Amino acid sequence: MCGVIGIINTKDVVGDIYLGLLCLQHRGQDSAGISTFDASTNQLLTKKAPGLVQEIFSCEQLKKLKGNVGIGHTRYPTVGSDVETDTQPFVMNSGKKIAMGHNGNLTNYYELKEKLRLQGVLLDSTCDVEPVLHIFANEFERTHNIFSSVNKVYQNIAGSYSVVALVEDGLLAFRDPKGIRPLVMGRKKDSYIICSETAALDSLGYSFMREVLPGEAIFIDKDFHVSSKILRHDSCAHCMFEWVYFSRADSVIEKRTVYNARLELGKRLAKRFDKEVDVIIPVPDSARTAAIAFAEELRVPYREGFIKNRYIGRTFIMDSQEKRDNLINLKLNPVSSTLRDLRVAVVDDSIVRSTTSQRIVKILKAAKAKEI
Amino acid sequence: MCGVIGIINTKDVVGDIYLGLLCLQHRGQDSAGISTFDASTNQLLTKKAPGLVQEIFSCEQLKKLKGNVGIGHTRYPTVGSDVETDTQPFVMNSGKKIAMGHNGNLTNYYELKEKLRLQGVLLDSTCDVEPVLHIFANEFERTHNIFSSVNKVYQNIAGSYSVVALVEDGLLAFRDPKGIRPLVMGRKKDSYIICSETAALDSLGYSFMREVLPGEAIFIDKDFHVSSKILRHDSCAHCMFEWVYFSRADSVIEKRTVYNARLELGKRLAKRFDKEVDVIIPVPDSARTAAIAFAEELRVPYREGFIKNRYIGRTFIMDSQEKRDNLINLKLNPVSSTLRDLRVAVVDDSIVRSTTSQRIVKILKAAKAKEI
Amino acid sequence: MCGVIGIINTKDVVGDIYLGLLCLQHRGQDSAGISTFDASTNQLLTKKAPGLVQEIFSCEQLKKLKGNVGIGHTRYPTVGSDVETDTQPFVMNSGKKIAMGHNGNLTNYYELKEKLRLQGVLLDSTCDVEPVLHIFANEFERTHNIFSSVNKVYQNIAGSYSVVALVEDGLLAFRDPKGIRPLVMGRKKDSYIICSETAALDSLGYSFMREVLPGEAIFIDKDFHVSSKILRHDSCAHCMFEWVYFSRADSVIEKRTVYNARLELGKRLAKRFDKEVDVIIPVPDSARTAAIAFAEELRVPYREGFIKNRYIGRTFIMDSQEKRDNLINLKLNPVSSTLRDLRVAVVDDSIVRSTTSQRIVKILKAAKAKEI
Amino acid sequence: MCGVIGIINTKDVVGDIYLGLLCLQHRGQDSAGISTFDASTNQLLTKKAPGLVQEIFSCEQLKKLKGNVGIGHTRYPTVGSDVETDTQPFVMNSGKKIAMGHNGNLTNYYELKEKLRLQGVLLDSTCDVEPVLHIFANEFERTHNIFSSVNKVYQNIAGSYSVVALVEDGLLAFRDPKGIRPLVMGRKKDSYIICSETAALDSLGYSFMREVLPGEAIFIDKDFHVSSKILRHDSCAHCMFEWVYFSRADSVIEKRTVYNARLELGKRLAKRFDKEVDVIIPVPDSARTAAIAFAEELRVPYREGFIKNRYIGRTFIMDSQEKRDNLINLKLNPVSSTLRDLRVAVVDDSIVRSTTSQRIVKILKAAKAKEI
Repeated sequence: MCGVIGIINTKDVVGDIYLGLLCLQHRGQDSAGISTFDASTNQLLTKKAPGLVQEIFSCEQLKKLKGNVGIGHTRYPTVGSDVETDTQPFVMNSGKKIAMGHNGNLTNYYELKEKLRLQGVLLDSTCDVEPVLHIFANEFERTHNIFSSVNKVYQNIAGSYSVVALVEDGLLAFRDPKGIRPLVMGRKKDSYIICSETAALDSLGYSFMREVLPGEAIFIDKDFHVSSKILRHDSCAHCMFEWVYFSRADSVIEKRTVYNARLELGKRLAKRFDKEVDVIIPVPDSARTAAIAFAEELRVPYREGFIKNRYIGRTFIMDSQEKRDNLINLKLNPVSSTLRDLRVAVVDDSIVRSTTSQRIVKILKAAKAKEI
Repeated sequence: MCGVIGIINTKDVVGDIYLGLLCLQHRGQDSAGISTFDASTNQLLTKKAPGLVQEIFSCEQLKKLKGNVGIGHTRYPTVGSDVETDTQPFVMNSGKKIAMGHNGNLTNYYELKEKLRLQGVLLDSTCDVEPVLHIFANEFERTHNIFSSVNKVYQNIAGSYSVVALVEDGLLAFRDPKGIRPLVMGRKKDSYIICSETAALDSLGYSFMREVLPGEAIFIDKDFHVSSKILRHDSCAHCMFEWVYFSRADSVIEKRTVYNARLELGKRLAKRFDKEVDVIIPVPDSARTAAIAFAEELRVPYREGFIKNRYIGRTFIMDSQEKRDNLINLKLNPVSSTLRDLRVAVVDDSIVRSTTSQRIVKILKAAKAKEI
Repeated sequence: MCGVIGIINTKDVVGDIYLGLLCLQHRGQDSAGISTFDASTNQLLTKKAPGLVQEIFSCEQLKKLKGNVGIGHTRYPTVGSDVETDTQPFVMNSGKKIAMGHNGNLTNYYELKEKLRLQGVLLDSTCDVEPVLHIFANEFERTHNIFSSVNKVYQNIAGSYSVVALVEDGLLAFRDPKGIRPLVMGRKKDSYIICSETAALDSLGYSFMREVLPGEAIFIDKDFHVSSKILRHDSCAHCMFEWVYFSRADSVIEKRTVYNARLELGKRLAKRFDKEVDVIIPVPDSARTAAIAFAEELRVPYREGFIKNRYIGRTFIMDSQEKRDNLINLKLNPVSSTLRDLRVAVVDDSIVRSTTSQRIVKILKAAKAKEI
Repeated sequence: MCGVIGIINTKDVVGDIYLGLLCLQHRGQDSAGISTFDASTNQLLTKKAPGLVQEIFSCEQLKKLKGNVGIGHTRYPTVGSDVETDTQPFVMNSGKKIAMGHNGNLTNYYELKEKLRLQGVLLDSTCDVEPVLHIFANEFERTHNIFSSVNKVYQNIAGSYSVVALVEDGLLAFRDPKGIRPLVMGRKKDSYIICSETAALDSLGYSFMREVLPGEAIFIDKDFHVSSKILRHDSCAHCMFEWVYFSRADSVIEKRTVYNARLELGKRLAKRFDKEVDVIIPVPDSARTAAIAFAEELRVPYREGFIKNRYIGRTFIMDSQEKRDNLINLKLNPVSSTLRDLRVAVVDDSIVRSTTSQRIVKILKAAKAKEI
C-alpha cells in the first residue's frame, strides 16, 4: 500500500503536495518523495528519502521544488527492498521529462523486467513502478500520444496500479482496469488534484469531482484542459482492505464513507457471532469502528481494552532480549479494569501473521481476562 | 502539565528512563531531558533540549548518560517562556551534585524569586522548579539532612509540585501536601521507579507499589534502602484534569483506572442531559471514553464525527492566510455520513479558550449537521 | 571533477570506503555516495545524498552497507543540475546487479543520450555516467564478458572518464584512452583498492601498485583474481589541472608528486617574470606551493597576504546586499602588515571567471598595497 | 581558550554575531552559544549547544534571537566537563536580566565556588564564568552600579578573563588586570563591537578602535553612550600562546600583527639553531609562518612535509585497533618527495603532550627521512 497525489495549479504547487502527503501518511510511513516540473527552467525537480513526510522535507527544501504541477508519494514498508533505491517518484530525463509514482502491486513484475532486459532496457531498482515508467516513456517518445502510451502500459502490465505522473508541464493519472486501488479527482478554482483518498481533498479544501474510473486515464495540460479516456474495461475488483484497514475512515470510496462500511462490517460480523461475552474491545486504532457497531448490534458494552502509545515510532531499545517484550508493552497497554474476570471479544481488522494476535492474547491473559 | 520519572537500578538506568519518557510523552511535547549520576566519575550528566523525546535523544547520546540512578522530564508547552533556558531537569554542581525536575505550578513563584534575590540567590531561568532546587540544595548543604531539606521546601513554596530529584547517587521524590499532581512508585527486582503515571510502570515491567502520598518525601539510597516520611498533611485536592484529560486512560490514580473514571463522567453527564439527539460524537482522542458512556446511557448511537490526522505535528504552512484554516482541517476532518441532517451531541473534555470549540462547531455546520 | 574509490576485501569494506571518501573530499563537496554488494543476500546496497561525506553517513547507516566489495563517489558542484537525481553511484538491478561511479566529462553526452533514446533506452538523470552504465550493462547482459562490454563503452563514448564499478561481487575499473583523469591501484594483504589519488592509498595503509593505464580495464573477482587488458591506445593527455589544482599535493601522478610538480611550475613561472616586487603572496590554499618556489627562485620574500577562514561553508547571510561583500571578507582576510606600501606579486592557480581575481585585487588595494 | 563577541546595533544584531562567531571558530570548536536581549518583550533569548557554529544554528533559529544587542561564545574543548551544562553564555533571570560569556581561566575557581556555597549561592555548572556572573549580578542587584559591580568581580577572582555581557539592553565588557586574554573594540556607524580578535572586526566591516585595556571595563548603553573605567592596574602579562598559536595570523594584538610576530619567532629561532639540514618543514597549519622565516634566515629550502586533510572532523572509525593509527594518517600524510633521504628540521608551535610529536617523528621516519 502507498499513497499518491498529483496537483496542477496556477501557482507553486509544492505546499499543497506536502500537506496532501501528510493526509496520506497513514498509507505508508517508509519513505516519501515529491517531484515538480519547473516550466521556467524546463527542469524536473525531485526530493525523496526514507522516513516520514515531516522528517524528510525542510521548509528550505520545499521552496526549491518550484513549479505549477507536481506529484507526491508515500511508501508502505516492504520487506527486503533497498529503501534508498526504491523510493518514488521515479523520473526520466531523456527526451520528455517524466516523473511517476504509483500505489499498487504488479503481478507480472519479474516477467516484465526480463522482457525489458531482453530489449536492452535495464532497470535501476527493484520497484515495480519503474518498468511502468519505461514502457510509458518509450511509447510516448515514439508516438507523442499520451493515451496510446497509457494503453501500451495496460497491454503489458498486470496487477493493481493507481498511477500519477508528470509529463513535463501536464498531469497524468491512470488506474488499473479492475480499479483495485482507489484514485479520486477534485477541484478548487483552476486547480485540479488527483490522489488516493478523498480525505486529502477535504483537508486541502478541494471539492470532490469523481473517482478516476477503472481502466481510465486522465490528462490535464498546463492550460487546465482535461482529457480522459476509458482504455480498458474489466470487472471491478476493489481491494477489500481499503474498506477495512488501509483508507482513512473519513474517506469516501464508491460514494460510501469508509466509516459506514466499517460499521456495516461490524454489524454483519455480529450476526454470525453467537458466543456470550461481557465486553467487546477493539485492537486500536482501525478496528474501533467495526467493534462499536459489533457491540451495538450485540447489545454488549464496548470498552477500550488497550491504550496505544502514539509516541513510539522507530524506537531503539538499548539492551537486547529483556527489553524486546517491553516494546510491545510500550505500544499497547491493557486497561485491566475493563478486562479482569470478564469474557472478552476482541475485534481486529488485519491478521497478516498470527504473531501479533498471539501477543495480544498473551497481554489479555496477563490482565486476567476470564475468556477471550 | 509535565511528566516526571526517576529510576534507581543495579545497572545503567538511561534505557528505562528513555522508554519511560516515551510513555509520559502525552504529558508534554515541548521539551524533554534526562539527568543521570555516574558514581564512577562522580559526575552528573544531563541532556535536555526542545522537541519530542524521540527527536532529542540519539542512541549514541543515551549511551553517554551513564549511571545507576537517573531522572527524566517531559515539558508541556507554556506560552512566553524561553524554551531553551527553561528545559528541565535543573542541576546543581556546588558541593553535592543535585538534579531536579517537577510537574506542577508554584503559586508564589514571583514572591519566592524576589525573596531569594534579596538573599543573594539569583536564578537563571523563568522555570519554577529552579527556586525549589535552590531552597532544597542550600538547606541540604547546611544540614546534610534530606528530609529537613524537603521540609524547608514545604515551608517556602505554595502550589502544586510532584518532584523527582537526584541527590548524587540517591533518588528523591516528594509531592505537595494536597497531592495535586500524581506520583506513583513501583518496583522490579532491586530496581525502583517513581513517576507520574502507572502507565509507565506497566510498560516498563515494574509492578505498582503505591502512590507517593500527599506531603510525603521518599528517598532511596544507592544500597536500595528506602526511607520515607510524611512531612505535611493537608486536605487532598487532586487535580480534576488528571481524570478528565491529562493522564493516560490506562493509568490508575487512587486505585481507580482513569478509563473507568471517564466512563463514569460520561454516565453522570447523561443524567443531566435532556435534549433529543440522533448521534453522539467525541472530539478525539481523550473525550472518546466519556462519549461512549454518555451514548450508552442515553441509548443513542455513538459515532466518530471527526477523524484526526496523527501525522500533523509542527507542520509549517508555506503560504499565509489562506492555508491557516487548512491547518485545522488537516488535523480534524468530519465524517459527513455521521453528521449530515442529524442532531449531533458533541462531547469534549477540555475548554481552555472557546476558540477551538467555535472551529469545531463551524466544521460540523459545514458538514451539514442539523443541530449541534 | 569528482573522486572515485573501489575496494574489494575479505571483510566488510564500507569502513575503508568511507575513510577513503574523506581523503578524496577535496575533489568534490556537492554530494557523495557509497554502493556495496552483499553476497549473502545478493543485494546491491546504496546510500547517496547531497552534502559532505561527514554529513551524509551516520555510523548506523554505514553499518547497513554490508559486503566485501564496494565503491564510493564524491561529486564536484555542477551548475544547473538536479543535485538529488544526479548523485552517484548509479545502479542497475536488472539481471546482473551493477553500480557505477565516474570522474570525468563525456563530450558526446547529448548525442549518446539521443542515440540511446532512439533505441528505447531512456535515462533518469542528467548525469553522464548513466549512459556509460547502460551501454556497459546491456552489452554485459548480452555477452557476459566484462572486457568486451568495456570495449563497447570505449566504442561509444568520448571525453574523459575514470570509472569504478561493482559487477555483483567483482570490482571493475577502467580509464579513458587518453588517461585524462587519474586512477591508481593499491594493495593491502588480500585487499585491493582502485581510486583517484595515491593520497587515499597512503592514508588507508594501502601500498601503491601502479596507475591504471589509459585505455585499460581491470577486473578483480571475489577470489581476488586480477585480470586486466589494455583495450584502447591513444596519445596521453593528462589533465593539467590535476597537477595545478585538483589533486592533493601529497598524491603521486605518473611517478611524480603533485607537490614537486607545483614547485616546478613556480620555478618556471619565475623565469618568465621580470617585474620588481617586494613580496610574493599566494591565494590560499592550493597556490601556496607554486608561490614558494616562485619566491625562492626570484629571491623575494614569500609571505601570506591572506588568511582563509576554514569554517565558512554553506553559510547563510541574514540580510541581503550589504552582507554580500562580507562573505568574501569572511573567507579571505588580508594581512595588512605584509601588503601595506609594498609591490605585491600574487600567485593564483585557477582563473575560472575573473570575478574572484577582481575581488582579490580590490581587497589588496583596500589593504594599501602599492602595486599589484 | 575560547572566543567571545558582543555587538550593540540599531537593528537585529544576531546576523553579525553569527558571522563573528564563524570568524572566531578557530578559538574553540566544542560548543557555541548566542544570547540577545529583545527590548520589545523584555526577554533574554539564548541558544547554545555542543558542536560547531554552523551545525548549531539554523536560519530559523537565528531569526528567533531578536534584539539590538547580543553576545556570542565559542568554547574550546576541555577534558572531563559536562559539555551540555557548561556551554556559554550563562544567563540570569532574577531582577535584571544578564547574560555572560568569557575567555579565560579562573585560578581560584574552587575556592570561589566554596565561598559562594557558604553564602548560599550554589552553582549549576562546572564552568568558571558562572561564579563571575553571580558575583557581578548580586552586586549589581544591590548597587545598580555597573562599574562597582565589575570591581567586586576584580576583588574576588584571580586568573585570566576577557568577559562580554548583556546587562539587559546594554553591552558590558571587561578584561582581567593583567590582560592575559585579548579583547578589542571596533565601530561601524552607530554600531559597536567588542570581541577577542581584530580578524572578526575586519571580516564584519568594523573599523578597529582600540584594545580593551587590562583592568578596564567598558559599558555601552542602548543610546550608544560609551562609558569606560580602568578599575585595576597590574603588570601586563599577555598570553604568549596568542602570538604563537591561538589567534588568527591576520589579527592584530598590541599594534602588531600576529603574522609578523610569528615571522619574528622563526627568525629568532634560526639564530639559536646550528644543525645542518636539507629542508625545513612545518607541522600545518599554524607553524607555517615561523617555519618560513626560519628557513629564510637559515637559507635552507622551505617545503611542505605534510598535507593536512581538512575534512576529518569528528570522524568515527568503524573497527577498533587497526584503524586507530589510520586516523592520524588520515589527518597528516607525508609528502615523501620532500623527505626521502633528507635531513629534515620540523617546526611545530605547540607541544602539549609529546604524543603528537612522537607520531610525527614516526611518520617522517616511515617516509624515509634521513635525519629529523
